[in-house]
Amino acid sequence: MKEPSQPVVVIAGVGLIGGSIGLCLRERGMARRVIGLGRSLERLQVAKDLGAIDELTLDWSIAMSEADIVVLCGPISTIAHQAMEAWGNRRSDEILITDAGSTKVEILSKLDIEPNLAARFVGAHPIAGSERSGAGASRADLFSGRTCVLTPTFVTSAEAIHQARWLWEGLGCRLVEMGPEEHDKALAQTSHLPHVLAAALALSVDPENHSLSAGAFRDMTRIAASDGGLWRDIFLSNRKSLENALDNTVKELLRFRGMLANESSVGVEDWWSEARRRRLAYEELVIERNMAAKTNCDSQK
Amino acid sequence: MKEPSQPVVVIAGVGLIGGSIGLCLRERGMARRVIGLGRSLERLQVAKDLGAIDELTLDWSIAMSEADIVVLCGPISTIAHQAMEAWGNRRSDEILITDAGSTKVEILSKLDIEPNLAARFVGAHPIAGSERSGAGASRADLFSGRTCVLTPTFVTSAEAIHQARWLWEGLGCRLVEMGPEEHDKALAQTSHLPHVLAAALALSVDPENHSLSAGAFRDMTRIAASDGGLWRDIFLSNRKSLENALDNTVKELLRFRGMLANESSVGVEDWWSEARRRRLAYEELVIERNMAAKTNCDSQK
Repeated sequence: MKEPSQPVVVIAGVGLIGGSIGLCLRERGMARRVIGLGRSLERLQVAKDLGAIDELTLDWSIAMSEADIVVLCGPISTIAHQAMEAWGNRRSDEILITDAGSTKVEILSKLDIEPNLAARFVGAHPIAGSERSGAGASRADLFSGRTCVLTPTFVTSAEAIHQARWLWEGLGCRLVEMGPEEHDKALAQTSHLPHVLAAALALSVDPENHSLSAGAFRDMTRIAASDGGLWRDIFLSNRKSLENALDNTVKELLRFRGMLANESSVGVEDWWSEARRRRLAYEELVIERNMAAKTNCDSQK
Repeated sequence: MKEPSQPVVVIAGVGLIGGSIGLCLRERGMARRVIGLGRSLERLQVAKDLGAIDELTLDWSIAMSEADIVVLCGPISTIAHQAMEAWGNRRSDEILITDAGSTKVEILSKLDIEPNLAARFVGAHPIAGSERSGAGASRADLFSGRTCVLTPTFVTSAEAIHQARWLWEGLGCRLVEMGPEEHDKALAQTSHLPHVLAAALALSVDPENHSLSAGAFRDMTRIAASDGGLWRDIFLSNRKSLENALDNTVKELLRFRGMLANESSVGVEDWWSEARRRRLAYEELVIERNMAAKTNCDSQK
């Protein structure tokens, strides 16, 4: 299978993620042209002024008339529909359609009705982002060293997977492949749950006590400033897995509360020690990964 | 009332907080001498080598023989006992005894039996710290611009309060005075609760999913690396207020879960919007406070 050679890439939705993809593609000379597609000329113009896209349009048929690759970067609730739109306007059956959505099961299940499209759709989730949004927050290195999960299924074409690997690896991502269900369960824990906890913490502290807070409250509510519509969609599209993750957390909180009420010094300390052990294991992993990334960079020099 | 003039200051417990107090007192020339008191010569020597103390001793009677001010920086569970020890070995009835403990009600209630001591004890809580511990992590500017809560009661001598203000303001703190009960309730929300949530999150994520996490998990579990014994004591000494704070959070989580289970798009979005509004209000406050701190510095130039 051959690598895509200077493909024309359409980015549907040029916010933080779409804008950063465009910046990176252009900076690395990966694409012949990058076309920004959206619903607001004003927002597309911001992305063009930043150098994230070469051209802009509001029209699917114009955008798709030359597209080799389409990356869907809009809110989760729009992705399946946009995949249909892209497929309907395709230049060639060889097109790669990929996305950057934070959940995968719901999107993929909606594409089942169109098997030819499903074969050319490779679900992707670059695990990078920010509480900031909009093209103005874009960075060409947003994906550098970040994990990107690809979720091909048994209907996905091997060539489309090959192209998706080329794209996301070219953007700097470390690739992981897994099933969509497995992805959604893991992300419910590592991303969606922390967002819910950040919001619950913000709601649990009386605003008049804000001035008596320090780094703990500051860092743990940072992501509660994220865009509400975006996260509503993510939460609802990953409902079951998020409910399970929340149940685990509530169980842990009630377990701790029980030991506190019983003044169990040993229980409280053991509970904390296990949490601390897990955090330290995570820190080890981050250190290892950063060292691996550094070794990689050094060997590419 | 006169300001303390070049007092001899005893710091009992020279970890992160005690070490930083010593560094700052010496850097600013506030004290005639700073004496480090502890249970480990080795740890005291680390503090001395860092320049946080002038002298070191393991002996209360030696340390107290010249002390004008004692700052108790050990774990919460030791503070009331150490206040008694300091009082029993005092050079003068005019001594100021203050502390840096994270909870106040329990400590103060234990001092009720010694009214003369209670008059000279000014509870203090500098809201600064780190998941790191030990004198090695000390910084002379740890308290700079940070809030320090003083919790005098109706038995505290006005002169002792005056001295405590001189000390903590001199260390760079922005002072706030409130009752010990009010302090403990507020801190249960702004500090103790976030620590419990960080640990609960660390415990809710399967370690094999760590590699699929990003900034949210990283920032929200940072403080789960904090010292377990220290936090066990804080949690247990502020049991009731922490239970209330936890109940509020569990209530918010279950409210969210209910809306999720009902697929209430509006409910989920409204819940998030209120949390986001609170975080943004907090950010406003931080910006205002930083601007005020800057204006203060400028006017002192």
